[in-house]
Amino acid sequence: MALAVVVCWSALFSINSVASDTPNLVISHTDVPAMKKALSSKGRFTEAFEQVKAKVDSQITQAINIPVPKDSGGGFTHERHKKNYRLMYDASIVYQLTQNKRYADYVRDMLLSYAELYPTLPLHPKRKKGKTNPGKLFWQSLNEAVWLVYTSQAYDMILASLTHADKKKIETGLFRPIVKFLSVDSPKTFNKIHNHGTWLTAAVGMTGYVLGELEWVEQALYGLDKSGKGGFLRQLDELFSPEGYYNEGPYYQRYALMPFVTFAKAIENNQPERKIFAYRNGIILKAIDTTIQLSYNKLFFPINDAIKSKGIDTIELVHGVTIAYGFTQDTDLLDIAKQQEQVILTGDGLKVAQALDDNLATPYPFKSKAFGDGADGKQGALVIMRQKSHDKQALLFKPAAQGLGHGHFDKLTWQFYDKGNEIVSDYGAARFLNVEAKSGGGYLPENKTFAKQTVAHNTVVVDETSHFKGKVKTGNKHHPELLFFANNNQGSISSAQIDTAYKDVSLTRTMALVKLPEIHKPLVIDIFAVNSSEKAHQFDLPLHYQGQLIETNFQLNAQTQSLSALGSKNGYQHLWLTAKSLPEKGLAKITWLNENGKFYTQTSLVDGETEALFTRIGANDPNFNLRNESGFIYRKKSAKQHRFISVLEPHGQYNPAKEFTLAAKSSISSLTHQILGDIELIEIGVSNGQSYLFAFNRQLANKTKNTFTYQDNNFSFNGQFKLFKLSNKEK
Amino acid sequence: MALAVVVCWSALFSINSVASDTPNLVISHTDVPAMKKALSSKGRFTEAFEQVKAKVDSQITQAINIPVPKDSGGGFTHERHKKNYRLMYDASIVYQLTQNKRYADYVRDMLLSYAELYPTLPLHPKRKKGKTNPGKLFWQSLNEAVWLVYTSQAYDMILASLTHADKKKIETGLFRPIVKFLSVDSPKTFNKIHNHGTWLTAAVGMTGYVLGELEWVEQALYGLDKSGKGGFLRQLDELFSPEGYYNEGPYYQRYALMPFVTFAKAIENNQPERKIFAYRNGIILKAIDTTIQLSYNKLFFPINDAIKSKGIDTIELVHGVTIAYGFTQDTDLLDIAKQQEQVILTGDGLKVAQALDDNLATPYPFKSKAFGDGADGKQGALVIMRQKSHDKQALLFKPAAQGLGHGHFDKLTWQFYDKGNEIVSDYGAARFLNVEAKSGGGYLPENKTFAKQTVAHNTVVVDETSHFKGKVKTGNKHHPELLFFANNNQGSISSAQIDTAYKDVSLTRTMALVKLPEIHKPLVIDIFAVNSSEKAHQFDLPLHYQGQLIETNFQLNAQTQSLSALGSKNGYQHLWLTAKSLPEKGLAKITWLNENGKFYTQTSLVDGETEALFTRIGANDPNFNLRNESGFIYRKKSAKQHRFISVLEPHGQYNPAKEFTLAAKSSISSLTHQILGDIELIEIGVSNGQSYLFAFNRQLANKTKNTFTYQDNNFSFNGQFKLFKLSNKEK
Repeated sequence: MALAVVVCWSALFSINSVASDTPNLVISHTDVPAMKKALSSKGRFTEAFEQVKAKVDSQITQAINIPVPKDSGGGFTHERHKKNYRLMYDASIVYQLTQNKRYADYVRDMLLSYAELYPTLPLHPKRKKGKTNPGKLFWQSLNEAVWLVYTSQAYDMILASLTHADKKKIETGLFRPIVKFLSVDSPKTFNKIHNHGTWLTAAVGMTGYVLGELEWVEQALYGLDKSGKGGFLRQLDELFSPEGYYNEGPYYQRYALMPFVTFAKAIENNQPERKIFAYRNGIILKAIDTTIQLSYNKLFFPINDAIKSKGIDTIELVHGVTIAYGFTQDTDLLDIAKQQEQVILTGDGLKVAQALDDNLATPYPFKSKAFGDGADGKQGALVIMRQKSHDKQALLFKPAAQGLGHGHFDKLTWQFYDKGNEIVSDYGAARFLNVEAKSGGGYLPENKTFAKQTVAHNTVVVDETSHFKGKVKTGNKHHPELLFFANNNQGSISSAQIDTAYKDVSLTRTMALVKLPEIHKPLVIDIFAVNSSEKAHQFDLPLHYQGQLIETNFQLNAQTQSLSALGSKNGYQHLWLTAKSLPEKGLAKITWLNENGKFYTQTSLVDGETEALFTRIGANDPNFNLRNESGFIYRKKSAKQHRFISVLEPHGQYNPAKEFTLAAKSSISSLTHQILGDIELIEIGVSNGQSYLFAFNRQLANKTKNTFTYQDNNFSFNGQFKLFKLSNKEK
Repeated sequence: MALAVVVCWSALFSINSVASDTPNLVISHTDVPAMKKALSSKGRFTEAFEQVKAKVDSQITQAINIPVPKDSGGGFTHERHKKNYRLMYDASIVYQLTQNKRYADYVRDMLLSYAELYPTLPLHPKRKKGKTNPGKLFWQSLNEAVWLVYTSQAYDMILASLTHADKKKIETGLFRPIVKFLSVDSPKTFNKIHNHGTWLTAAVGMTGYVLGELEWVEQALYGLDKSGKGGFLRQLDELFSPEGYYNEGPYYQRYALMPFVTFAKAIENNQPERKIFAYRNGIILKAIDTTIQLSYNKLFFPINDAIKSKGIDTIELVHGVTIAYGFTQDTDLLDIAKQQEQVILTGDGLKVAQALDDNLATPYPFKSKAFGDGADGKQGALVIMRQKSHDKQALLFKPAAQGLGHGHFDKLTWQFYDKGNEIVSDYGAARFLNVEAKSGGGYLPENKTFAKQTVAHNTVVVDETSHFKGKVKTGNKHHPELLFFANNNQGSISSAQIDTAYKDVSLTRTMALVKLPEIHKPLVIDIFAVNSSEKAHQFDLPLHYQGQLIETNFQLNAQTQSLSALGSKNGYQHLWLTAKSLPEKGLAKITWLNENGKFYTQTSLVDGETEALFTRIGANDPNFNLRNESGFIYRKKSAKQHRFISVLEPHGQYNPAKEFTLAAKSSISSLTHQILGDIELIEIGVSNGQSYLFAFNRQLANKTKNTFTYQDNNFSFNGQFKLFKLSNKEK
């Protein structure tokens, strides 16, 4: 067997003529001369190189440490093996740029040690029993594949420095067994249309290029059986929508992005004839761009199982933007690269660094857009609406599909952002990443019992039961329908519907982010219609807000002496009921103050029979795992139909440092709602006596002209919606 | 009467020869040529001028609005009159620097309108009945004096442009009546040794200089009767300690500073022979410097009734630093000026701007220091300990005096800061400044029922009763004794005692902020000894922390189904009891994660009979006025003596963005405590097996050499304390 391997490898060696053509994965040998030359002058690239070199220099004096795998995520052996691949990768780049053999030898020695250890390893002791994704160096094969994506590049970069004997040892002891383990020995994960599958195929395909095993590349691209049912290309077909949206959401999208862009760059360098960046109308570049679009104030919108501190400066997106710029030379991307403040030591990294040094960046255009979900782009959508005002409002509306196992039961939920901050928020994931004391650093039990549940989001809960009864399988089978999305110079509107979240209840929500004419006051308009085809139900519409309650225009009835949990299951058991009110018929107002120094008032049109329940997260939380955030729930107790109508209004300024407070009161004095055939109307009165009329066509947008009569006046508009100032002139 | 005024004014006019010598308050006519000249080149001063001019230009096109006073703080007429004085002040400076008469005319017109309105005004309708400090333009005379401090300067700056007739109208209608109102008609406030008194004396004295009424200046300096029992100089004698500490704390110190520095500068310009900046060993400059010292990460330490967002960039301290730099040319101050990012359009402001343009700033030296409290500096102290490590730890220890009406019942409390954030925190004031819906923008009821109470702080509460039974008068009569403060290259230590907070209980606390030798790990050591001379009591030691609980090394017993208030009065009614534990004898550990990404573990030496109660602020809060922050209380139920001993340890790093977590576990494995005569010892074992011995002399520092025997080894040290590494070498 050992002999056969040697023969095979020798045979391929000449075919691939590795010695003269390395490196050739993400960094091509053709990039290296310019990279070396750049180091002779100052600039971002040289700075980045010096930082990496200093880090490598400080570490390679220490003894090589290849511990026998023992710990799961966050534990010593786990972190050490991660550190080792980064170190080998960095040292190998320093070798390419300095040609100082000391660095290559260090990588070689570490690889030789791994080559001795790897064949002796059983499955990892901390693997999850019963799962098909165990690793050897790590508790899951995902981490093993990540390790190999970097290590194959490190090997590629020192290859020219190695003796035949060392190459043989390293390939026989390490690369061939690990590729075998991740491919033929892990068929289910390797063939899976899922980000774990992407990492595995990328790792195997890249190693295939380095070792000249083009068969591995074929398997990586088309699946183990090369049928095209699995593999990298199928993943590109299915994991992204035509707009480049990844259905687990941006948190996982940026993570998934890494193997896509890395392997794609390696394919481009090795087999440009595959035109991988043009594949499916440039889906890889679209995916990179969409990841950027799905951020606000540098952070990703935290839908599904997202940790909120992740943003556009994550290393995955740094690689993505770098590779995309290398391919497109699109100077808008430099705006993002600038904010990432990281320069990658590759050929594309050099292009980015030099372009930034030359101040070529142009403002990146954040857009209002509906990102279709699903491989065909028709399984609902994730809708982003933005206002380009000074404070940069953004509204996320989520009639998107379930998003697999990390998806939340939050159909038609929304989030709102203003002046850099979350205002109407989503809990994100309940997790302290890699903190051993918190459920080993993985997802906390409360992720399932609270964070994924419908009541943890800003959408209707029927009978205190989550969408799809909280079942992922059911959720994956269904999705909302995007009825329409439109935008014009007044703002954006979107409407969506789902009738499968509950057996006999359909949910239809229309949201708009608009500015009142002339006074340019931004408002969020929200109309949530709930219809039961059979019996009466309880309808809850929660809103989770960030800030401190300032006032309500109705009696709060706060629980002052004791608190109890609001319910017993489906997330309700984690909410303390802090106040219970019954606002009178008319306008109910709730005002809070965000730490960005602005006030926010939600004005709701209530029927006098809808309760306002105030909540605080933290009940049934024996280990204090949850953040104790605030919210309120409008509850219609028993009805077959109901329509929740509200307007969210940012206003004023609280500046205790400079000692002034402006416009702490909401200016909305009246709200009325009316339906006239296809046209739906909201009239908004403001405190100076002026009124505005928001009109939209409820049907899919076909008509170019809409006309209607309101209060004996004729109105007309083109397109989906218009905001009228109700004055003599308009009437 | 009117005639008499004219005569008087005409007579003085020639004496003071105003026409040629104006302006001459904060800005002197001798400053103006250089200021004008500076505008011909770029730089900070020109930028600041252009901003002010643009603001003025946009406002003076609008109609002058002098509303009849109606509203209290935050209301329209209140804010409008504030806006007017700023506008007059700014416009008058633009006039000086451009000599464009349009600006002077605008100020003149506004002053003429005020001169018509003022004589017609009764006391303000929103004044607090029964108080001796009503205003006319504003609800309290304090605001009226502030208005006059600015407006007198504006008048001074346009004086040369006015006709005799206009001067007469303005002085007769406005300045003479307002000065009369604030001085002879408000004798109690004018003569008060208090910051309201400072504003009134400054306003009257400055107006005296402008109108040539040197008698007013005398009254401002020495009190209405010129006896020296009241007035500005007496205020300088009594309101600051010899170290320049103002006994209400930094939040009110920066506020109080403004009239001191402004009037002082006016005195210096008009009567340099008074040598006001040398008065009482340069107390004004010391007060400015101490205000800076009492900040962390640009924000003031929030003791007493403080709003936390106030910091070194407040306009009062901008003026203070500017005037101090003008007088001293101390380049350390430029470091602060740079962070303030504001340039004042005065002669001193020009010096600061040019020095910053020339990059003359040198690092401002934040110190570890005990700031003596009280006019004699012996009424306790406010102690600041700092570590100049990368993360810049700071510990505030507060054996300070009560601090009058805004003082809190928090003797011997502490706060801790690290990496820019509050870690062990103080609630500060319960107030939403100028937010009408929150108790009219004034102090909330919860400021008294919670924020001022002892349990809202990090110090011992006996029998659930606040210090001095929560009575300000009692508190003002007593103060803690500072036993010692010392620092060396290992860190700082301080000890203090008070036996008047409770009838029969004395409280003695020793705190140290030190770094373990060789490993340079920072620690806070806290030894709190409580002694009852009569009967047994319940002793509670709360700690309010900022962050999320990560783990405890004992059973939490969280309240999962319902929460109740911890007590019924003295602040306890505002605390929800979230968990109740009884840690076993030995070490009790509580770890939390701050949003700065670091972990903090408090390790306490417990006797197995001390409960750990976990709390969350927010009970009995019908209007949701309180922030829902977390804390824990160690409770010794019934004892005559007790000693709370603990060590706070910052450790590790949580970085979910970069996906790594380091040292999430505390490294302290043992703590022992021992007293050997005057020497007190804490032995600290860390998880690598190493031990450290912290030794200090409990007595007032006199000895230069201390010797003791511990575990059969002899030790010696000089000064107050030393941290020994317990190894063969040290033994």
